[in-house]
Amino acid sequence: MFEARLTQSASIKKILDAIKDLLNEASFDCSESGIQLQAMDHSHVSLVSLTLKADGFDKYRCDRNLTMGMHLGSMSKIFKCSSNDDTVTITAQDDADTVTFTFEAKKQEKISDYEMKLMNLDQEHLGIPDTDFSCVIKMPSGEFARIVKDLSQFGESIIISCTKEGVRFSTSGDIGSANVKIAQTANFEKEEESVIIEMQEPVVLTFACQYLNSFTKATPLSNVVQLSMSDNVPLVVEYQIPDLGHLRFYLAPKIEEDEN
Amino acid sequence: MFEARLTQSASIKKILDAIKDLLNEASFDCSESGIQLQAMDHSHVSLVSLTLKADGFDKYRCDRNLTMGMHLGSMSKIFKCSSNDDTVTITAQDDADTVTFTFEAKKQEKISDYEMKLMNLDQEHLGIPDTDFSCVIKMPSGEFARIVKDLSQFGESIIISCTKEGVRFSTSGDIGSANVKIAQTANFEKEEESVIIEMQEPVVLTFACQYLNSFTKATPLSNVVQLSMSDNVPLVVEYQIPDLGHLRFYLAPKIEEDEN
Amino acid sequence: MFEARLTQSASIKKILDAIKDLLNEASFDCSESGIQLQAMDHSHVSLVSLTLKADGFDKYRCDRNLTMGMHLGSMSKIFKCSSNDDTVTITAQDDADTVTFTFEAKKQEKISDYEMKLMNLDQEHLGIPDTDFSCVIKMPSGEFARIVKDLSQFGESIIISCTKEGVRFSTSGDIGSANVKIAQTANFEKEEESVIIEMQEPVVLTFACQYLNSFTKATPLSNVVQLSMSDNVPLVVEYQIPDLGHLRFYLAPKIEEDEN
Repeated sequence: MFEARLTQSASIKKILDAIKDLLNEASFDCSESGIQLQAMDHSHVSLVSLTLKADGFDKYRCDRNLTMGMHLGSMSKIFKCSSNDDTVTITAQDDADTVTFTFEAKKQEKISDYEMKLMNLDQEHLGIPDTDFSCVIKMPSGEFARIVKDLSQFGESIIISCTKEGVRFSTSGDIGSANVKIAQTANFEKEEESVIIEMQEPVVLTFACQYLNSFTKATPLSNVVQLSMSDNVPLVVEYQIPDLGHLRFYLAPKIEEDEN
Repeated sequence: MFEARLTQSASIKKILDAIKDLLNEASFDCSESGIQLQAMDHSHVSLVSLTLKADGFDKYRCDRNLTMGMHLGSMSKIFKCSSNDDTVTITAQDDADTVTFTFEAKKQEKISDYEMKLMNLDQEHLGIPDTDFSCVIKMPSGEFARIVKDLSQFGESIIISCTKEGVRFSTSGDIGSANVKIAQTANFEKEEESVIIEMQEPVVLTFACQYLNSFTKATPLSNVVQLSMSDNVPLVVEYQIPDLGHLRFYLAPKIEEDEN
Repeated sequence: MFEARLTQSASIKKILDAIKDLLNEASFDCSESGIQLQAMDHSHVSLVSLTLKADGFDKYRCDRNLTMGMHLGSMSKIFKCSSNDDTVTITAQDDADTVTFTFEAKKQEKISDYEMKLMNLDQEHLGIPDTDFSCVIKMPSGEFARIVKDLSQFGESIIISCTKEGVRFSTSGDIGSANVKIAQTANFEKEEESVIIEMQEPVVLTFACQYLNSFTKATPLSNVVQLSMSDNVPLVVEYQIPDLGHLRFYLAPKIEEDEN
């Protein structure tokens, strides 16, 4: 028996909105410690990694390890039928071929349950090595989304250059070239509005706009995004999910031949 | 001479929004007692019935009975040119082939008049017998619209099951199955937020989502919708139009062979 | 060296939104006194004339007269990357083939610069003779936009009739006919909400809806629009750009043979 309960279905709605364009379907690995999802996007370029901790749920029970393959578009359709502050309970029998989502309105007079068929999906677990990154940038997630969206209009790749002073995002294309520079916040009061850079050594890396744009669909999850970069290893774009876990996206830098 | 005046054109805007997708054109039957419209939708499955009482208008004069065939899309275009709190006056000469809509802004400095050509439409008056219904449900119109919209994503029909305790809406399709249960409100203070069931005997009936969804376009007319059901007779979905009359939709239940 | 600085990029955003559908590209003529743009729309029917005075800018320097041909769609894309209250600086070297737009966020921690390639455009300067108009109408720009939009649904041309008492806009088409009358404001307190008519003699002129509708894209620039009309000369539709200059559209009346 698997059962997980959250008093606000909104968190899961936002997670689904963040990943359903990158992943058509995905396996949710449920164990005593929580729920894990790890999958390459359908063009096999970027990697999505989601961790939801058992103790972040209002109720959590997982008698036996369980892998549930779900179509994320269908799951998102179901969650869109709930109100943001509905309580959601996810239940599955051991060895079941369906999962049930039950939404209860706060006023308790409306109970909706949706039973969804599960899918058998190929599993591929990639070990992600721990890395010491050359630069780790924390910045407002909305600002990052805005910059990526703006620059995507002018070129296909974005060069991210990080030094102690700040971060520069740049691109160029038919219309011309674009540069956006944000400085490290000097005296910050609110951490979530600040740009904070931890740098071992400066990096200059190039990434495909298309994937960065997809990652920023996670913006509603958190006010802050963390970008971790080193030469020759994938960029990690991380959004904390308050009280519940985190969502990470991995994207390899473009190498020189690709850059034009 | 026909003349009808309302201080708020918004009511008629909302009526047109509610029916113009079901009916391309319709005959408005005007008499001393008010305006009546009755028509099958263009696929001849559901029936629309509108009653506007003469004394609901701020001014009403109808010297001779008069039937005006109107293209509802054109009529809606004209009403969209008015502001919600414009006064509207509808005038027609006896035997005229046009009708005139005059909108006056509250500040009186702007007067717009639109003269629209009338149409000759075949009339078909269906006698609607009075029925004692097994179940009559009053519920918030927004909740009904939400449930119908949500379930329409998962199946083509909705089964409505009504008992003394509450109403269950359910459907199933490729993704899985969905059930929404709403309980009768125990201690209600605001009638318009309550679910109130008058039941002679329980009913379980199946209806096509497509039509239920069209009916809910009338939601802005009223906070409450009334669903009246009996075996083997059409469902009646009724919206009161405050001070002015009511709009009713009739839809026959699907019989078993149709249900798959 | 050319440099022009405005503390709010919003004004230029609005100007671009107003003209970019009529003009694909345009030449900005920069001199000591300010910036001028004059161009026929791409179907060569209407004329756009923009004047931005040097002293309306927060900083303005133009060492040598300079004509910059710009693609307005690209320029608009760039300005949409700025926030409304960003400071914008436009810079170009003498004889440069690029122009640079630099946006600084009020908080100063974000600086974006966009370098755009310039275009070589054919110049055609039309002398616009000063005219004493038979009627000059000032009215709320939003009201004018609304009337033009409403009537455009019913016909292809709008007849504007102006007398001392007021202005009548009318059209007719397949559905029927439409007339909107607005009266001159008798006792006005707020000039920007009033209809003010200066009339030498009454005029009745017909214009193509399509162009009038395009002109009303300038509505966000000003609360007031001024319409100047005389027989046989183009209508002038003028929007003041507060502190900075004005945007004018010219459109010849339709002659009788066109009116069908």
